[in-house]
Amino acid sequence: MTIPERMRAAVLLGPDRLEIQEVPVPRPSYAEVLIRVEACALCQSDVSLIREPWPGQPPYGEFVPGHEYSGVIAALGEGVDEFKIGDRVAVEAHLGCGRCINCRRGDYTSCLNYGNRDKGHRANGFTTNGGYAQYVLNHVNTVHRIPDNVSLEEASLLTNLGCVIYGIETLGGLLIGERVVVLGPGAIGLIAVQVTKMLGAEWVWLVGTRQYRLELGREVGADRTILIPTEEPVALVQEATHGRGADIVIDCAGSPDSPGISAELVRRMGKILLIGFPHGKVTIDLSRLGQRNVHLFTVRGESRANCARAAKLLGLGRVNLRPLITHTFPLPQIEEAFHTFKNRDTQAMKVLVKPNEKG
Amino acid sequence: MTIPERMRAAVLLGPDRLEIQEVPVPRPSYAEVLIRVEACALCQSDVSLIREPWPGQPPYGEFVPGHEYSGVIAALGEGVDEFKIGDRVAVEAHLGCGRCINCRRGDYTSCLNYGNRDKGHRANGFTTNGGYAQYVLNHVNTVHRIPDNVSLEEASLLTNLGCVIYGIETLGGLLIGERVVVLGPGAIGLIAVQVTKMLGAEWVWLVGTRQYRLELGREVGADRTILIPTEEPVALVQEATHGRGADIVIDCAGSPDSPGISAELVRRMGKILLIGFPHGKVTIDLSRLGQRNVHLFTVRGESRANCARAAKLLGLGRVNLRPLITHTFPLPQIEEAFHTFKNRDTQAMKVLVKPNEKG
Amino acid sequence: MTIPERMRAAVLLGPDRLEIQEVPVPRPSYAEVLIRVEACALCQSDVSLIREPWPGQPPYGEFVPGHEYSGVIAALGEGVDEFKIGDRVAVEAHLGCGRCINCRRGDYTSCLNYGNRDKGHRANGFTTNGGYAQYVLNHVNTVHRIPDNVSLEEASLLTNLGCVIYGIETLGGLLIGERVVVLGPGAIGLIAVQVTKMLGAEWVWLVGTRQYRLELGREVGADRTILIPTEEPVALVQEATHGRGADIVIDCAGSPDSPGISAELVRRMGKILLIGFPHGKVTIDLSRLGQRNVHLFTVRGESRANCARAAKLLGLGRVNLRPLITHTFPLPQIEEAFHTFKNRDTQAMKVLVKPNEKG
Amino acid sequence: MTIPERMRAAVLLGPDRLEIQEVPVPRPSYAEVLIRVEACALCQSDVSLIREPWPGQPPYGEFVPGHEYSGVIAALGEGVDEFKIGDRVAVEAHLGCGRCINCRRGDYTSCLNYGNRDKGHRANGFTTNGGYAQYVLNHVNTVHRIPDNVSLEEASLLTNLGCVIYGIETLGGLLIGERVVVLGPGAIGLIAVQVTKMLGAEWVWLVGTRQYRLELGREVGADRTILIPTEEPVALVQEATHGRGADIVIDCAGSPDSPGISAELVRRMGKILLIGFPHGKVTIDLSRLGQRNVHLFTVRGESRANCARAAKLLGLGRVNLRPLITHTFPLPQIEEAFHTFKNRDTQAMKVLVKPNEKG
Repeated sequence: MTIPERMRAAVLLGPDRLEIQEVPVPRPSYAEVLIRVEACALCQSDVSLIREPWPGQPPYGEFVPGHEYSGVIAALGEGVDEFKIGDRVAVEAHLGCGRCINCRRGDYTSCLNYGNRDKGHRANGFTTNGGYAQYVLNHVNTVHRIPDNVSLEEASLLTNLGCVIYGIETLGGLLIGERVVVLGPGAIGLIAVQVTKMLGAEWVWLVGTRQYRLELGREVGADRTILIPTEEPVALVQEATHGRGADIVIDCAGSPDSPGISAELVRRMGKILLIGFPHGKVTIDLSRLGQRNVHLFTVRGESRANCARAAKLLGLGRVNLRPLITHTFPLPQIEEAFHTFKNRDTQAMKVLVKPNEKG
Repeated sequence: MTIPERMRAAVLLGPDRLEIQEVPVPRPSYAEVLIRVEACALCQSDVSLIREPWPGQPPYGEFVPGHEYSGVIAALGEGVDEFKIGDRVAVEAHLGCGRCINCRRGDYTSCLNYGNRDKGHRANGFTTNGGYAQYVLNHVNTVHRIPDNVSLEEASLLTNLGCVIYGIETLGGLLIGERVVVLGPGAIGLIAVQVTKMLGAEWVWLVGTRQYRLELGREVGADRTILIPTEEPVALVQEATHGRGADIVIDCAGSPDSPGISAELVRRMGKILLIGFPHGKVTIDLSRLGQRNVHLFTVRGESRANCARAAKLLGLGRVNLRPLITHTFPLPQIEEAFHTFKNRDTQAMKVLVKPNEKG
Repeated sequence: MTIPERMRAAVLLGPDRLEIQEVPVPRPSYAEVLIRVEACALCQSDVSLIREPWPGQPPYGEFVPGHEYSGVIAALGEGVDEFKIGDRVAVEAHLGCGRCINCRRGDYTSCLNYGNRDKGHRANGFTTNGGYAQYVLNHVNTVHRIPDNVSLEEASLLTNLGCVIYGIETLGGLLIGERVVVLGPGAIGLIAVQVTKMLGAEWVWLVGTRQYRLELGREVGADRTILIPTEEPVALVQEATHGRGADIVIDCAGSPDSPGISAELVRRMGKILLIGFPHGKVTIDLSRLGQRNVHLFTVRGESRANCARAAKLLGLGRVNLRPLITHTFPLPQIEEAFHTFKNRDTQAMKVLVKPNEKG
Repeated sequence: MTIPERMRAAVLLGPDRLEIQEVPVPRPSYAEVLIRVEACALCQSDVSLIREPWPGQPPYGEFVPGHEYSGVIAALGEGVDEFKIGDRVAVEAHLGCGRCINCRRGDYTSCLNYGNRDKGHRANGFTTNGGYAQYVLNHVNTVHRIPDNVSLEEASLLTNLGCVIYGIETLGGLLIGERVVVLGPGAIGLIAVQVTKMLGAEWVWLVGTRQYRLELGREVGADRTILIPTEEPVALVQEATHGRGADIVIDCAGSPDSPGISAELVRRMGKILLIGFPHGKVTIDLSRLGQRNVHLFTVRGESRANCARAAKLLGLGRVNLRPLITHTFPLPQIEEAFHTFKNRDTQAMKVLVKPNEKG
């Protein structure tokens, strides 16, 4: 594979100022690979950090965002035998420092040296360059081989699936026969529906505020959907469970109301998994958890190598991420891509940028 | 439902002496139900306890064996609102005492008062009467509703499925992406293949000594089968995993050799689940476990209400136990049923007795 | 032991109306024991349910509250060989139904049939008579032998200790080297300090608003105390941990502010255990949990037989509950006992009533 | 601190041929520290690998063994801010590759790239130079600060304590009220006695074949000792537990008989932790595990950062490793040190070599 000297990349020049520039193609060091990017998916965190820098973010003029991407191995750094040139791959964002207590116990997305390059931490698209470019460097730990039967577009959503599986691991793993309610029919929520169904949940209900997303939910396997505020999820779940509540509630909504609703939906000794979460303060009756021995779990990202599990699950064809991809743009149209992503009238779900496609 | 005064039952009169007798139909007490038995499956433990009594077994002349059965609720004892007459059900064998430390923590198949009726323990078909009869009494805890889309013949194998799910819970539950080897293509092994596949294992291989059983294994989902001694499982697994070994080995073979083979098959930090186990002493190199941080788990029966999970999984159509049922006999032919079950030339797997079918 | 026909008991006649009456001494049934009560400790839930009935509570005129008590076995029901007459014992409150999914998995304080006597559930002092009487009936599961070296006064606090140990089990059990902050220097908080210290925490800090309680905290082992609002716990903990936060926060304060403070105190991947909890809604920034992969656990009561562990720990002399007992009254002075308990000017912590002591 | 150009080290020249040589003092690279060794303890694995090389061991003439050591930080490599020169420290042996699935989940002593320096794995004293030298290089992950109140001699045994704590973590952590039997009163066994007592075990019994070691066991806290073959551990434990067995058996004996004895000692649903293990095949009745739902756990080394916990526990003075140290030699007498260690007539337990002490 011939690698050019220079490439196109979307460089962040200031708040909400991405510009397509010609920049040098980087060269992989020890334990790194160079990936020729096929597709990079937009994420709400991109919107946020493009508007206002996150901790550890490189300075304006030097930073290429984008952390959900896939591509093909273009070059290998020293000491890499996990991959060969031409391998089709997708990535996870976080490489922990490997030195703090969290990393040493496998919880590297909670690295205590976040943003500290000298200690070894990096997160592509957050604290080092990411996938809105024709080429990108990744540490081997963050790269996963994608089988031929999975398109690289679909594979660009790998971390979303890895995050859900990490959440399932956090909950204890065994879902056979459980009754599950998912709040929030965004990408994560729609994946949560698929994974919990696949793992043998008795039923999975999906709650949201947009009918077209709930319909997508039914397509990917939700047994029932609840449209709020037209329908009342707590009353419906209590009725269906004879007043006991759901065994597991997965809150992917990130709205100020959803944690409180989750607390009402779950049964005694049940579990809430908070994947999306509202920014700022919310009001919640914690006695609903305490009186009923309910635990509230959260996941940050996709730790404990769960993206490796995700890649295998994709390869097995056991989940289908394709329906989540609603729009695709070449890199030069990245501004339009973000506009589409943010403007919900377009019914956009996941929007991809394809850096090596002719614009 | 009209319940007769008397019924046919296979009473154990002495070693290997089952006789069909007319006996009174029992009446349910508090928290009990009377089940009209549709099908009762033969199990190796039946063979063993019919030959020589197990601890806690009722005396000759009073005992009706059989612990894997299904049927229809015929009468309700006091305080039962979990079921109504006519419900289609299947059972698990063990009701713990509810008083010992194991029962109080949910591990009732390891009840420390096993066989002590005064303390509340009972195990249908082991320490109290079982399913080789037209009617049988069960405590509500041991009864599970079976949806209409599942045949009662298939449902009679419920505990086999519950046992495998309990094993999966014991292993930690999350199987997505794992590489699994199952030893022993008997009923439990063939169910283990199905459940681990369903839960997202990357691949599941099945090892055995009888070709027709391995073929059945492929039918129910095994990705590869290994016929020993013709093929060599350790070499094949090591080759497929680049010398690392399988993540999980489920040993259902119960042969003196299989634990040692399991120890060679599993990777560093992998897990062995021993469901079948050889009687008497075996020879094994435990340093293969210790040097590689491998844990050996066992399961006795189907604790922690995992038969409730099993019933739901059957209802979802996510596993198929029908292919395991090779022979069916009316109750009067129970002797022939056991002969068929023990004589492997018939290629028998699970053999059912149907107490209410005309013989 | 001679058992009288009648006894003194504090019967609840209406809201905040306890009256000492002569009532019949009950007789133990199957699996029950009769306990001659030595001491019964007042609890905030007593205050609450005496003011306004809780779900499942017996009607006015028939109900004797009190759930934290100790005494001596006075009579045995049928089938009891766990105890003999004269045994010194203390109790836990909850006997689950043994039939619901939570009970069948060991989580009986979250029984889904709470208050349903017909299904077998009972909770002494909540849904059946309790310890503000000379005698009380308990199911054997709720009774624990107390060694001679532990006073029955101290032993009456058994459930408080059991609840903390259940919380530690919920957190995962291993505390060696952890940095712990306890909020709320009430009885539970002071026990949490002792147990976490005993289990090898690196240090345990105690946060509260009353100086005399914090001083008691230091006496029982707190490495440092923080008096709010004079001192600022978040700043102090962040300073001591170089900005990382505490590994474990145990919130026993039950104030509307403490969950929010807990969320600020804990490190990435740390855990919060909510034992006390505020009634009604609180305001909290859940993104502080979600962004940092913090889990929030709750415990209701003292499930999974942890009072058995508590009784052994008391017998080993590894915790000291005596300093928590500040006042003792004979049963006829129960009104004064509650007045003392509620009026914090008396510096009351745990207040005991002794039903068999001459008033 | 002045660091010399050359130092004394015990270099392995061939089978059982250690020679004291003058060699260059190494210089720390990125993330490494140079330690001036105070004490290095002899271990059975040293005896084994000096006799016959282990996998990944450096060639004769280049290798300095020794993996249990303590000392003082003498120089810092690039990027190290965890330590400063003069810090008193002790080490763990294993640095995982950080790239394989086990390392990525925190189980680095089971690194799948063991011995592969190119991938980043190293184990001081096994695959790279160790502590039988005046100076040694360690990666920061393997170094732990030792407080002033702990002697560096005692601290040299850090990994032994870390290994036991890792075992406790593997067992699930909560030991309050458990009945524990430890087999094998060697260094690991005597530490296991102390840690399980500290964590609130109801009682801890110690089984061995040498009376002087059992006496040491009583000194460090064993509630009872059993001398085999004079006394019969299974009968005694069954008697003390009314035929139920011990909750937890920790087998540190490494004899061919001890796993079989462990299987007889443990109760239904109990756990066996195998820390020592016999080399070669043993004979064991696995049905004793399977029929009683007993799990057999093993630990290899001291993963999941448990040496950090161990260092804190030492600092708290909660365990006392001093009584385990029976002999001390200067480096030039290393041959005599090994002779003493291997010859049990000297009643040697842990034998230390002190490389910077004048011989």
